Amino acid sequence: MRKQITIKDIAQKLGLSTSTVSRALKDHPDISPKTRTAVKELATLLGYRPNRIALNLRSNSTKTIGLIIPEIEHYFFSSIINGIEEIAYKNDYSVMVFQSNESYKREVLNTQAVLTNRVDGVLVSFSKETTDFSHFQQLIDNEIPIVFFDRVVDSLAADQVVADDYQGSFMAVNHLIERGCKRIAHFAAPQNLQIGKSRLAGYHDALLKFNIPFDHQLVLLADTFEVARRAAHDILRQPDPPDGFFAVNDLSAIAIIKAARDLGKKVPEDVKVVGFENSRTAAISEPELTTIDQFGFELGREACLLLLKRMKNKNTEAFSPTRKVIKTKLIVRHST
Amino acid sequence: MRKQITIKDIAQKLGLSTSTVSRALKDHPDISPKTRTAVKELATLLGYRPNRIALNLRSNSTKTIGLIIPEIEHYFFSSIINGIEEIAYKNDYSVMVFQSNESYKREVLNTQAVLTNRVDGVLVSFSKETTDFSHFQQLIDNEIPIVFFDRVVDSLAADQVVADDYQGSFMAVNHLIERGCKRIAHFAAPQNLQIGKSRLAGYHDALLKFNIPFDHQLVLLADTFEVARRAAHDILRQPDPPDGFFAVNDLSAIAIIKAARDLGKKVPEDVKVVGFENSRTAAISEPELTTIDQFGFELGREACLLLLKRMKNKNTEAFSPTRKVIKTKLIVRHST
Repeated sequence: MRKQITIKDIAQKLGLSTSTVSRALKDHPDISPKTRTAVKELATLLGYRPNRIALNLRSNSTKTIGLIIPEIEHYFFSSIINGIEEIAYKNDYSVMVFQSNESYKREVLNTQAVLTNRVDGVLVSFSKETTDFSHFQQLIDNEIPIVFFDRVVDSLAADQVVADDYQGSFMAVNHLIERGCKRIAHFAAPQNLQIGKSRLAGYHDALLKFNIPFDHQLVLLADTFEVARRAAHDILRQPDPPDGFFAVNDLSAIAIIKAARDLGKKVPEDVKVVGFENSRTAAISEPELTTIDQFGFELGREACLLLLKRMKNKNTEAFSPTRKVIKTKLIVRHST
Repeated sequence: MRKQITIKDIAQKLGLSTSTVSRALKDHPDISPKTRTAVKELATLLGYRPNRIALNLRSNSTKTIGLIIPEIEHYFFSSIINGIEEIAYKNDYSVMVFQSNESYKREVLNTQAVLTNRVDGVLVSFSKETTDFSHFQQLIDNEIPIVFFDRVVDSLAADQVVADDYQGSFMAVNHLIERGCKRIAHFAAPQNLQIGKSRLAGYHDALLKFNIPFDHQLVLLADTFEVARRAAHDILRQPDPPDGFFAVNDLSAIAIIKAARDLGKKVPEDVKVVGFENSRTAAISEPELTTIDQFGFELGREACLLLLKRMKNKNTEAFSPTRKVIKTKLIVRHST
């Protein structure tokens, strides 16, 4: 093991006391600018690094935030991660990301890992499988602040940040009706997720506004590319096929466009399609996809800001959960 | 803080000694199957959880692997993460992911965070900005095994797992020539990265094989969607435009297809395009993209297996770095 350079080494070489060196490295005003510069230059030259482990033990903080997220590959989640990291690194925190991979079992392991690693706070969007939340309660019992985002739970004493799914979905269906669609299908997410419920409610209420009857046969559970492509094939070959689709995410929407093309139908002439997410793929699909921007980066920023605030005021205030809602926006492109 | 259930609680309720309970929970053969079942049932009922922190302190292992990666959003990297996690979780390790976001400064913070969190091993693909590797040397000095993947460095005593970039690139250009291309442009990655160099070399040597002269003006640095789209516009409007393109990644390839369409050129009739990655987007682009599969999932699996082996044999063998090369594969679709 190569010898680590210590404050003592720097002090000896410059003929200073260790406390002078220590204070010089921290820009203490008692130390002259000349000495500060000399100390810092030598520290750089020797490759001195402050012992973060010791620093952290002393402050009882690891300066890390744990992030538990269903899927890293999903554009929405990766933009949330980027938003979280922007705030975290600005405030001198590292972010350790754990992927539950939509598995309850792995998510329980993830919560154990954040406990083991004594993180200062945790950001969570839980897996599709999760219906029991006691592993998160364990974090709260250990006095680790948690903020839930996107997929949230009301039964725990924790803050929440969500996109306005209902509003986004309402706008999407409203737009399809304004473009002339009379028979609109909805490709939905599982109804145990709040986003599944809210987006279905937005679809329902937009139809209601225009006196279009709600038809259960036009609502299908299809939130992956493969399932959506098959489902679109089936429904487009029926005698009275839909002329509009609102999909719960962009990949499902692109699958619908593919299926329409397979069957010789033109988008947007014969079939109009709106997605939800505003992923990178939406902008490069052919035709480019009309979608709802969820502002994942903003959502991540807000979740991290809320967590930092909660970490700071951990012991000073009575807990009353905050719920923050990020507005969504309709992005009109060539698929409608 | 809610009271944690301990082994003592279980022992008292069942009238057993704590050591019997402890051994029963570990399936020790000295304890009768009946007692083991009774102990485990009560443990589940009471919500007993072993104290992982204590366990880990005792074994001097945190059962976590640190992963430092440039970008989570990139499909190739997210599939590597999934491959790594498959192996890690099977072997009872958690994976904490740190994103350098292609920033050297953040990468240095990431290495400090993995040190602070006393991970058992580290997997790294470094940022585009990184030219000084002493922060990784610091991990090695602290006896933390490292395996580099995709973006690797030869000057450190660490294992490497890479895709066969040269072979993939050679196959891509060979395929374009076989499909009749006479003038093939290469959209390249930065040449300080080994992948940039290897893919350019494969392009060069495939041209050589068919006696096509290498033309510097046909090689452009364009490894993002936006840059590639502009560059393709420029080069396709020249008097003697290319009839084939080999792009260093799928997003750049899709940008070339977009640019060709903007200019009224047909793909694959007027211009043929091959990407590199085999991302999800390649399969859903229009036309579907011919590309080189890098097998990110496999690469991640291999990197993690190598790291586990290295962690196990940490103190028992002299160090001699291993280099593992994952073969790539040409996937022919409709863009050629």
